[in-house]
Amino acid sequence: MPGSSIGTLFRLTTFGESHGAAIGGIIDGFPSNFPVDLEAIQAELDRRRPGQSSVSSPRKESDQVRFLSGLYESKSTGAPIAFIIENTNQRSQDYDHLKSVFRPSHSDFSYQQKYGIRDHRGGGRSSARETACRVVAGAMAQQFLEAQGIQIRAFVDQVGPLKISRPQDLQKLDRKQIDAHPVRCPEPELAKKMEALILDLQQAGDSVGGSIFCRAEGVPAGLGEPVFDKLHAELARAMLSINATKGFELGSGFQAAQMTGSEHNDAFLEGGQTATNNSGGIQGGISNGMPIYFRVAFKPVATILREQQALNSELKAQQLKAEGRHDPCVVPRAVPIVEAMTAITLLDFYLMQRAYQ
Amino acid sequence: MPGSSIGTLFRLTTFGESHGAAIGGIIDGFPSNFPVDLEAIQAELDRRRPGQSSVSSPRKESDQVRFLSGLYESKSTGAPIAFIIENTNQRSQDYDHLKSVFRPSHSDFSYQQKYGIRDHRGGGRSSARETACRVVAGAMAQQFLEAQGIQIRAFVDQVGPLKISRPQDLQKLDRKQIDAHPVRCPEPELAKKMEALILDLQQAGDSVGGSIFCRAEGVPAGLGEPVFDKLHAELARAMLSINATKGFELGSGFQAAQMTGSEHNDAFLEGGQTATNNSGGIQGGISNGMPIYFRVAFKPVATILREQQALNSELKAQQLKAEGRHDPCVVPRAVPIVEAMTAITLLDFYLMQRAYQ
Amino acid sequence: MPGSSIGTLFRLTTFGESHGAAIGGIIDGFPSNFPVDLEAIQAELDRRRPGQSSVSSPRKESDQVRFLSGLYESKSTGAPIAFIIENTNQRSQDYDHLKSVFRPSHSDFSYQQKYGIRDHRGGGRSSARETACRVVAGAMAQQFLEAQGIQIRAFVDQVGPLKISRPQDLQKLDRKQIDAHPVRCPEPELAKKMEALILDLQQAGDSVGGSIFCRAEGVPAGLGEPVFDKLHAELARAMLSINATKGFELGSGFQAAQMTGSEHNDAFLEGGQTATNNSGGIQGGISNGMPIYFRVAFKPVATILREQQALNSELKAQQLKAEGRHDPCVVPRAVPIVEAMTAITLLDFYLMQRAYQ
Amino acid sequence: MPGSSIGTLFRLTTFGESHGAAIGGIIDGFPSNFPVDLEAIQAELDRRRPGQSSVSSPRKESDQVRFLSGLYESKSTGAPIAFIIENTNQRSQDYDHLKSVFRPSHSDFSYQQKYGIRDHRGGGRSSARETACRVVAGAMAQQFLEAQGIQIRAFVDQVGPLKISRPQDLQKLDRKQIDAHPVRCPEPELAKKMEALILDLQQAGDSVGGSIFCRAEGVPAGLGEPVFDKLHAELARAMLSINATKGFELGSGFQAAQMTGSEHNDAFLEGGQTATNNSGGIQGGISNGMPIYFRVAFKPVATILREQQALNSELKAQQLKAEGRHDPCVVPRAVPIVEAMTAITLLDFYLMQRAYQ
Repeated sequence: MPGSSIGTLFRLTTFGESHGAAIGGIIDGFPSNFPVDLEAIQAELDRRRPGQSSVSSPRKESDQVRFLSGLYESKSTGAPIAFIIENTNQRSQDYDHLKSVFRPSHSDFSYQQKYGIRDHRGGGRSSARETACRVVAGAMAQQFLEAQGIQIRAFVDQVGPLKISRPQDLQKLDRKQIDAHPVRCPEPELAKKMEALILDLQQAGDSVGGSIFCRAEGVPAGLGEPVFDKLHAELARAMLSINATKGFELGSGFQAAQMTGSEHNDAFLEGGQTATNNSGGIQGGISNGMPIYFRVAFKPVATILREQQALNSELKAQQLKAEGRHDPCVVPRAVPIVEAMTAITLLDFYLMQRAYQ
Repeated sequence: MPGSSIGTLFRLTTFGESHGAAIGGIIDGFPSNFPVDLEAIQAELDRRRPGQSSVSSPRKESDQVRFLSGLYESKSTGAPIAFIIENTNQRSQDYDHLKSVFRPSHSDFSYQQKYGIRDHRGGGRSSARETACRVVAGAMAQQFLEAQGIQIRAFVDQVGPLKISRPQDLQKLDRKQIDAHPVRCPEPELAKKMEALILDLQQAGDSVGGSIFCRAEGVPAGLGEPVFDKLHAELARAMLSINATKGFELGSGFQAAQMTGSEHNDAFLEGGQTATNNSGGIQGGISNGMPIYFRVAFKPVATILREQQALNSELKAQQLKAEGRHDPCVVPRAVPIVEAMTAITLLDFYLMQRAYQ
Repeated sequence: MPGSSIGTLFRLTTFGESHGAAIGGIIDGFPSNFPVDLEAIQAELDRRRPGQSSVSSPRKESDQVRFLSGLYESKSTGAPIAFIIENTNQRSQDYDHLKSVFRPSHSDFSYQQKYGIRDHRGGGRSSARETACRVVAGAMAQQFLEAQGIQIRAFVDQVGPLKISRPQDLQKLDRKQIDAHPVRCPEPELAKKMEALILDLQQAGDSVGGSIFCRAEGVPAGLGEPVFDKLHAELARAMLSINATKGFELGSGFQAAQMTGSEHNDAFLEGGQTATNNSGGIQGGISNGMPIYFRVAFKPVATILREQQALNSELKAQQLKAEGRHDPCVVPRAVPIVEAMTAITLLDFYLMQRAYQ
Repeated sequence: MPGSSIGTLFRLTTFGESHGAAIGGIIDGFPSNFPVDLEAIQAELDRRRPGQSSVSSPRKESDQVRFLSGLYESKSTGAPIAFIIENTNQRSQDYDHLKSVFRPSHSDFSYQQKYGIRDHRGGGRSSARETACRVVAGAMAQQFLEAQGIQIRAFVDQVGPLKISRPQDLQKLDRKQIDAHPVRCPEPELAKKMEALILDLQQAGDSVGGSIFCRAEGVPAGLGEPVFDKLHAELARAMLSINATKGFELGSGFQAAQMTGSEHNDAFLEGGQTATNNSGGIQGGISNGMPIYFRVAFKPVATILREQQALNSELKAQQLKAEGRHDPCVVPRAVPIVEAMTAITLLDFYLMQRAYQ
């Protein structure tokens, strides 16, 4: 497990650095004979693309995905599906001043300690650019899952102190509604305030954190494998493999710590549904047929346009003021990534359950 | 991945139901020629054992571990280390009334949906009794890690509304101090209040949630594998594989969502340490040499001695009032489990890093 | 992959040394709700047991298997199925003289080099006693496969120079016929000669090699995963994980090297069967619906009652004459092991194919 | 395990069909900070390339490999190393007549049964063209292994009835000597006869099988993981994952079946080496420090220019005479593939052993 792969039956392996020739991946285990909508995949990539709005990095990458294998007359053949996204708008010289600098709260230092060598350009392998590959695989997984009646929707429920108090109470949302505002928060008034906050902080050379809420509906009961491969454990792993994440909570989450059993328990309704859904759709690590929902916390972007204490290669202190093109807040662009990682995880368990049933 | 194994190079596979003949496991990949302290392993088991204090289930299990292989003259041979813990105090008849009942917020229903069959006695495979096996493997892993200078300490930082505000600020703690009070909260006054709250709720036939804080010190920089096997992603997975968990946060965690970059970034000190540690000791999924710390949220125990809406096997509503022996709050006994899962995860990554270095 | 596990969806993990407290294993991923015939499993173990006949080691092990989990009212629950076989007839003192001796063509030396420590008693972990655990898991897998119409039969086709020339031409055989003679060769006259050869060599303090032929009928087309997890590649791996094996060949095997394409190609019959079956039932790593057959070569048992050049712990030469209880030829007892490993491999691929279909 | 990956710590995942846009792969887990000789990798690819000699397919593929990631200033960074080889000389129309035909002894039928869909052009995913990707990864692995003193050399030891009787007795060979003749048999007179045989059969529209001998020298004792991941079991799996293979034998191989223990045992010499090497350098699944050697059998190429009984898509009989460009014998071009798979397997175990030591 050198780290570039996820999944057992549905498996994604990615490659590529921010400023290399290309990024891409290999999708293995996608069910055969399924008609794949390539335009819909590109549309998902466009939702993640930098430069798409007022609140995202101005780096202009067209992020055109090209498929190299595994498809024949637009259907999956069962063979691995490889794809690449060429890097076109690299400005590696922007990073020359970082060649021998470890930036605070970046992975420069930990990578150097681990590998003894580092591709410093744009964060190299640790760049969030890698997540574009996840969106490709996730979009494909979503197409298959939707054909089975499973729908995944994520949105921004918090930027800095601005938040939706109980996002789980929002009714069914469509993507159009979520994408209507560039912040991807479905409450229009709050979205405007979030955007203003982000732009104010960007103006001040600063950045801000946030969180994303995600819900999967139509997931049949029975997905997840006890005891170590519990469904929410794997969802947590998938989410916390996304850049800049700091926390994951399922259903009632950290609120559960201050509740009593009589408040928290989800009373059954006849037929198997429950009156409340504090469990978040998973009991004992296995889906119970209710909607699955969770939240993911993201830290503020580490690159800020202010003087900070960094280190040089001799580990001596050095003042640093960042340059380059950066997002002031990652959560709007992270929405399709959260959806993608959810789909990748659910499809793996879906296939697993088919094996055992 | 049918779910009963965790780890790649250091791997634990467990078996056993709450009311079967025995529980146990196989530890594979433990480094050879290491002197194993078997009494220290039993001591860790005793910390998890039911019936140990005022705030734990009165089920009396001696939880004596017996090793069957992999040790020769008290040293590890490199062969798999198998162990069993016989179940001695089963009162399966306590569960007869549950044979055809699905309890709310238990895994009865989801297991039945998944497998089409269910061992209803004491929760069967989904019982937290399984975690005793994790404690055995974790205790062994901890012995090896401590010999490399790595120390893991967990404690209760929240029970219901009672909480330590910044547990990361507590100085180095020893186990004696943590175990001094049965609640395993290192702040004596707060511990007493927590105990009172738990006992009050128990008296009222109710239960309560809580959370656990864990810190690993002495972890060298370089552990963790980008991009999917990030160290905190695997820690999250390990923690959320523990029964009753609802959330995981690393370092600043969900607080990060409301912070700005200038607040959150950890400025470097000369030599590679950082002035603050919002990152929680991990950058880009790789340890950076600072202490690793995180929190895990636990829901209130689902079994409460009150009437609740359950289902019968035809999925019709049925009123249910629990019987049997149960913990009113799981976090005190979960402390050694959190430590064990941390050790299991870190040892796997420690061996991995040795392979690549 | 520390080595004690095999399989992805159907997974066996084993433990135990020849002269430890017990051997055993954990079977994970066995389909739930299947009625398991425990007596039939014990019967398979009895076929592998030492002391069963004139041509096997006189070590008397009752090899009684005891199941600890995963079964409820004789049905599989989907939970891991653990089992142990206690070691009862250990005569470890027989091995005292080997404590500091590396025997020729045993794994004493390579284990010591690998682990820096060694349990010398009876070969420790490297003892073929471990294969009893495979027979347990394999017998369970066979029960499931037989319910799907898949039948696996192995027999001895060679002992020393005595061999069946084209074992693939033998018609359907039942176990009774194969087990009628202790050598487990279905041709009675040849079996008698084999027995005589084995007993002569044993008398002379020597041992002899042999080979086993195995055929699986009723395997549906489509099992196996290209390109690295080809069905015959995994069968080869499974077979060569059995002690004392030196070679594996599928279908035409090494004969294929001297054939021409026009001789070797299997012409199709209408409907999808083939006129000949040089392919051995697998094309491109995927079963084609024809019977799968292969041969496995076993070396002569390394323990012989003659003076041989061994090494002491300082790697100086030392003459050694073996004592203890040993088989003069392993193939008769290896027949159920080959069947078990075939079943374990086929069930894993069978479940895999269910996932993708 | 959908099949496109091999290895645990050093892992290769490949993609691509014979007549798709490109083939390629992702190498994950290659040690960081190692200077990679890209020209030497291309040179290995050239040894496998079609159209290189009198005895190989006239398809003209330049097989230029292009690296997309994981290298920085010609050193490995620890990030995954992706590469592609564009397909340039596709003549897919050559295969139009096969769109609805299942060829005998090809994987057309088994793939169709498995996936319900098939890319018929040039064998699609089942084409041996995929092995070019293995050569790239294997060449990289070999560079690292050679820096540790491990050398791998393979050659053709049999074509049809023409064979070297004891290839293990040949002294150290260099590649130049092996490649001196296009058949890659190091005995010049025999090589000439082999070539003549191949050309005669080709002339007659037929093909012929063969076998390859491979030896790895300098492998330290201790590689391999008991009990299921024995070194020779994994070598067998790796070899039998190569197209057209039918058998694998380690050391004495199938000869062992007819030997006695006193003939077969390898007496020790002082210091740990052995007088003979029937074991083939592996005892109990673990390398013992002696040279590792094995043989791999290949069937004759299934495509022959003669009328054969094939099937149409309704599984009715249909006469077929092949067209297209094909090798009359695969073993000369398979030599670098066998070396590559050996290197891939050994590097994985080499890293594994570093983890545990």
